[in-house]
Amino acid sequence: MFFASDNWAGAHPKIAAGLSSHASGFEPAYGSGARDRKVAERFIEIFEREVAVFFAATGTAANALSMSACNRIGGVAFCHAEAHMTVDEFGAMGFFTGGARTAPVPGALGRMDPQALDRAITRFSHDLAPAGQPMAVTITQATEIGTVYALDDIAAVSAVAKKHGLPLHMDGARFANALAALDVPPAEMTWKSGVDIVSFGGTKNGCWMAEAIVVLNPELGRDLQILRQRAGQLFSKSRFMAAQFEAYLADGLWLETARHANAMAARLAGILCASNRVRLAWEPQANEVFAILEREKAEQMLAAGATFHEWGLPQNFDGDVAEGEAIYRFVTSFATTAEDVDRFGELIG
Amino acid sequence: MFFASDNWAGAHPKIAAGLSSHASGFEPAYGSGARDRKVAERFIEIFEREVAVFFAATGTAANALSMSACNRIGGVAFCHAEAHMTVDEFGAMGFFTGGARTAPVPGALGRMDPQALDRAITRFSHDLAPAGQPMAVTITQATEIGTVYALDDIAAVSAVAKKHGLPLHMDGARFANALAALDVPPAEMTWKSGVDIVSFGGTKNGCWMAEAIVVLNPELGRDLQILRQRAGQLFSKSRFMAAQFEAYLADGLWLETARHANAMAARLAGILCASNRVRLAWEPQANEVFAILEREKAEQMLAAGATFHEWGLPQNFDGDVAEGEAIYRFVTSFATTAEDVDRFGELIG
Amino acid sequence: MFFASDNWAGAHPKIAAGLSSHASGFEPAYGSGARDRKVAERFIEIFEREVAVFFAATGTAANALSMSACNRIGGVAFCHAEAHMTVDEFGAMGFFTGGARTAPVPGALGRMDPQALDRAITRFSHDLAPAGQPMAVTITQATEIGTVYALDDIAAVSAVAKKHGLPLHMDGARFANALAALDVPPAEMTWKSGVDIVSFGGTKNGCWMAEAIVVLNPELGRDLQILRQRAGQLFSKSRFMAAQFEAYLADGLWLETARHANAMAARLAGILCASNRVRLAWEPQANEVFAILEREKAEQMLAAGATFHEWGLPQNFDGDVAEGEAIYRFVTSFATTAEDVDRFGELIG
Amino acid sequence: MFFASDNWAGAHPKIAAGLSSHASGFEPAYGSGARDRKVAERFIEIFEREVAVFFAATGTAANALSMSACNRIGGVAFCHAEAHMTVDEFGAMGFFTGGARTAPVPGALGRMDPQALDRAITRFSHDLAPAGQPMAVTITQATEIGTVYALDDIAAVSAVAKKHGLPLHMDGARFANALAALDVPPAEMTWKSGVDIVSFGGTKNGCWMAEAIVVLNPELGRDLQILRQRAGQLFSKSRFMAAQFEAYLADGLWLETARHANAMAARLAGILCASNRVRLAWEPQANEVFAILEREKAEQMLAAGATFHEWGLPQNFDGDVAEGEAIYRFVTSFATTAEDVDRFGELIG
Repeated sequence: MFFASDNWAGAHPKIAAGLSSHASGFEPAYGSGARDRKVAERFIEIFEREVAVFFAATGTAANALSMSACNRIGGVAFCHAEAHMTVDEFGAMGFFTGGARTAPVPGALGRMDPQALDRAITRFSHDLAPAGQPMAVTITQATEIGTVYALDDIAAVSAVAKKHGLPLHMDGARFANALAALDVPPAEMTWKSGVDIVSFGGTKNGCWMAEAIVVLNPELGRDLQILRQRAGQLFSKSRFMAAQFEAYLADGLWLETARHANAMAARLAGILCASNRVRLAWEPQANEVFAILEREKAEQMLAAGATFHEWGLPQNFDGDVAEGEAIYRFVTSFATTAEDVDRFGELIG
Repeated sequence: MFFASDNWAGAHPKIAAGLSSHASGFEPAYGSGARDRKVAERFIEIFEREVAVFFAATGTAANALSMSACNRIGGVAFCHAEAHMTVDEFGAMGFFTGGARTAPVPGALGRMDPQALDRAITRFSHDLAPAGQPMAVTITQATEIGTVYALDDIAAVSAVAKKHGLPLHMDGARFANALAALDVPPAEMTWKSGVDIVSFGGTKNGCWMAEAIVVLNPELGRDLQILRQRAGQLFSKSRFMAAQFEAYLADGLWLETARHANAMAARLAGILCASNRVRLAWEPQANEVFAILEREKAEQMLAAGATFHEWGLPQNFDGDVAEGEAIYRFVTSFATTAEDVDRFGELIG
Repeated sequence: MFFASDNWAGAHPKIAAGLSSHASGFEPAYGSGARDRKVAERFIEIFEREVAVFFAATGTAANALSMSACNRIGGVAFCHAEAHMTVDEFGAMGFFTGGARTAPVPGALGRMDPQALDRAITRFSHDLAPAGQPMAVTITQATEIGTVYALDDIAAVSAVAKKHGLPLHMDGARFANALAALDVPPAEMTWKSGVDIVSFGGTKNGCWMAEAIVVLNPELGRDLQILRQRAGQLFSKSRFMAAQFEAYLADGLWLETARHANAMAARLAGILCASNRVRLAWEPQANEVFAILEREKAEQMLAAGATFHEWGLPQNFDGDVAEGEAIYRFVTSFATTAEDVDRFGELIG
Repeated sequence: MFFASDNWAGAHPKIAAGLSSHASGFEPAYGSGARDRKVAERFIEIFEREVAVFFAATGTAANALSMSACNRIGGVAFCHAEAHMTVDEFGAMGFFTGGARTAPVPGALGRMDPQALDRAITRFSHDLAPAGQPMAVTITQATEIGTVYALDDIAAVSAVAKKHGLPLHMDGARFANALAALDVPPAEMTWKSGVDIVSFGGTKNGCWMAEAIVVLNPELGRDLQILRQRAGQLFSKSRFMAAQFEAYLADGLWLETARHANAMAARLAGILCASNRVRLAWEPQANEVFAILEREKAEQMLAAGATFHEWGLPQNFDGDVAEGEAIYRFVTSFATTAEDVDRFGELIG
């Protein structure tokens, strides 16, 4: 009953095996080997266009380097008020960029509101011009609260970004979960909808440690090679990340693991709905379920061995959380089993 | 005949196996799991004292974060003129510290000269006081050119650092190779000789990607947890690094691989010495051999499938490199075989 | 009819004369001369306690260096949502600190609400702990919209800051105007109310270019000497700033000019109130008047030679601005004349 | 007998008067007023071409902002080993650029050796490519030791910079002194000799506080307006600097004061040469004299009321400094009188 986070899981057996199978042998370092090139080509296939790929050790690094690629003097990046980049990364974005910052944009259910975005950028371009320069828009897909931007949602945000001449970044720590939820090709969810650069996460969905910056707009990629070297994110045995991505992207494994995680979340949501002790805080769309429980009940479940975390009320949350209740987050992954979900359901009663 | 770098090798089978064996199961993220704690205790055992351990993805990150831990306003770190930190890391140290920099100190055979260090620090404390503040001394062990600081050498550098109130950092990208060469316990080569903080490398010696900052002086470790988080170096599945270190440090594997690499370098050096086509540039002490070859001969060897690199003349090199000759570097690793070394010897004639 | 800004004025004749009278003669540079020491003592007298004083060329520099003195890794400074530091200084604070940032706190009429501050800091200390570290609270006195914190208001903010262990900074670009409005000694408005460090502005109130960081809490001043040197804010002919402050602080000139500016604002407010074409947006307390005019009327006044600027609606403004109307700002200074104010009144009708 | 530094002097009477005459009246702030525009045009006249001009409060700020304008990721600026930027500005350049740094280039008598520069840049472009990216060459005119680059010297340095595609910056803290020494127009000493951007100093030569970045290559100026705002170097009462420059550049005042300072240095040098107690360390060319004295004699002179400083031995100094002797620096300025110089001569005997 491990629902604390998808990064509590280890590695998918196929990824572990893929990695091990490349342990022996010599290969050029720093990404210049054959395996790195092969994986780069695989990304091109998957995205159906030329892309540049830069591995990163963490999602924080992928996001902060993406922002570095968009950096401007006195830069301001527009993100949802609860974006990981602004609330969970200890100021990495400001540090990597030498002082750029985020400006929060509101929006229901974890999704940025395009009209609010337009107002925010306009305000920074006019009233707040002495505050700095708009430099990028960034969205999280799937969002921090387990919802997903539909293609139209992305296009609407992108239209505002383009109107103001700003690149659009997608924090895809759970890229595959969103893709599986939408059931569309990567190209549709990214560049065909106006996305310029993606933090493409593999770690939460079955890799050991495999993140990549996928640059769809070539202008943004110009300096990333040296930006990441300066940031300590150029890996000597880069092929170790390549090997993970090779296995991850082979035969649709990544979508399979994501679909499994999403299905487990749906199963959990169904069970919780059926219980009269719990109600969903909002409809889950990917691999995270947010539910309202009595604190006492939550304590019991934790005591019974389940792992999960309380979650702060989102801004503008209009649901009903009574005295003695709280919102809790349940995350599923490639490693979550139906048995575990069902056992949790039985215990919750 | 792969002598280009020790990071061209993959992972040692035991490390690959150790990693795989932990692929399944759930464990708390971000270093709070049982395996991380166990590895931290293993480091304490190995160093025979309390230490704090922070994993890093690359040697550059380990060095730059170590410097961040020593950072001062207008900071100046004293390093050998050819230290990796100053010539190979694309300014990571300046970037991580918001503008600190290195001051080069001369010294024969890759080792910092203590008297020259004393003069350099004194000069920055007096004549060059408006240039900034001395903040740290850093040495590389084994050095960039395959030599090793004897315990007395470290103590002599440390005495100068302490006299000026500066912490001493050791860039141990090849820590194990130096340790094997000196045949002393880690405690002797570090804190008992005055070292305060170490970039402890595992990658070049058989791991996939496993570097650690080992803090011997507790004052320096105070902020490292958040410094690394802000730098995108806090790993969600941290246990993946822990598992590598677990295998690496178990049953003396790390010293075994280092001794093997050093022995292969000695074997290669012996063979080269015996050849009349080649002469050693200086005596190798760890796993790197530097030799003077005719360029023409080098080209032949490369054409025959050997991999190795030309090396720039070190500062103050007093050897004799004739017209048409150059210095070349040959690096051995845990994966180098005696057969390969011998085959190279046969070809070189 | 120059109401565009108090920095459109030149220098008060006494300050210009004081400066000129020190043009000849030699004196040690970089703040080590007799005049600098004398001015430092004058600040001690005025603040009725030991203080350290560091000159700065601009208010932006004084603010950003004050924040540098409070800086922490991943630092977050709490300020009013409309604070100059966050909306008017082109990210200087983030740049000087290597990535720290502001978190906005709401509050009516330009004053930070202490309860909201408490919630904001608490949130960053708990829910948003991975976002970074609280590092300071900063208030602007007089505020950006011409209101003033009463002593009790400052004490209430300070109590919250102290509860969370944070230093309190005061952006005193219009320090004298606030002091004149409250009619209290500087000690009361600062350290006796819990303020730790002040950006003490002289430029807007009659100096050419004279800002100072006044450190009331000695811990915060430790590094300011070198922080400002590194920031290009250590002045060789520092006595030129000392001479301005000497004249500024002699015989109460600074309070006289501030009282005059405030009186002119009050006079203007009275005239505007009496007019049926204009209404005050809120009650002015220092030297800035904000009034609601028909845009057409504003255009007429500008065409008639008056200078003033439109002002964006403050957050949470509950006044009534009709279609065709806007809020305009009118700033008075030591150089504003009653005649000019009255002439403006006559024209507005 | 004030020879400690040219920044111990106050302001030239004409500059003080010019400033005072503009104290009254209102004018737009932040450099948008008529006086600023007029001064900008005066710079265009003087440089005989389009230039962009940005005022700065200190030479350190002018240099660091000039380097910001040339900044690259992992940037390296090539300067003489004893350049003010690298030894006297507390790391401002690294701080402003987020981690760029200087690489020292040797050269006799304070002037960078073009061949050594070529080798240094080539080395960073090839052997040291992983160290970072060459970003600029910077020379100091007049040099830190009172010598001057002849036009051919500048052209030779510039040719090397251009060969490598790097902009050439001139630290002109003593621009006028060098110009007076060479007796050429500013255009000859700058863009006609290949200089792209200048730190144009006024403070040491008779202003209170007036430095300017003069951009000769328009590409470099693109971001300076916002770079300086973010750095706290955009002045509200900018006309106060404009007024200084107006008086400084009117009727050749700046060259007159520089010629006077140079003449006083020559007079002092002549007197010192004639004395058998002193010998020149090298030939002075601008307004600084470096001489070798017995320490005992120097102490006597200081006790007699003269002010001057000991100077460290320059790198590669091949003169003869005996036991008990040292090099001392004597700086003259617009305010130095022949009487004072002669009195010093009489005392030294």
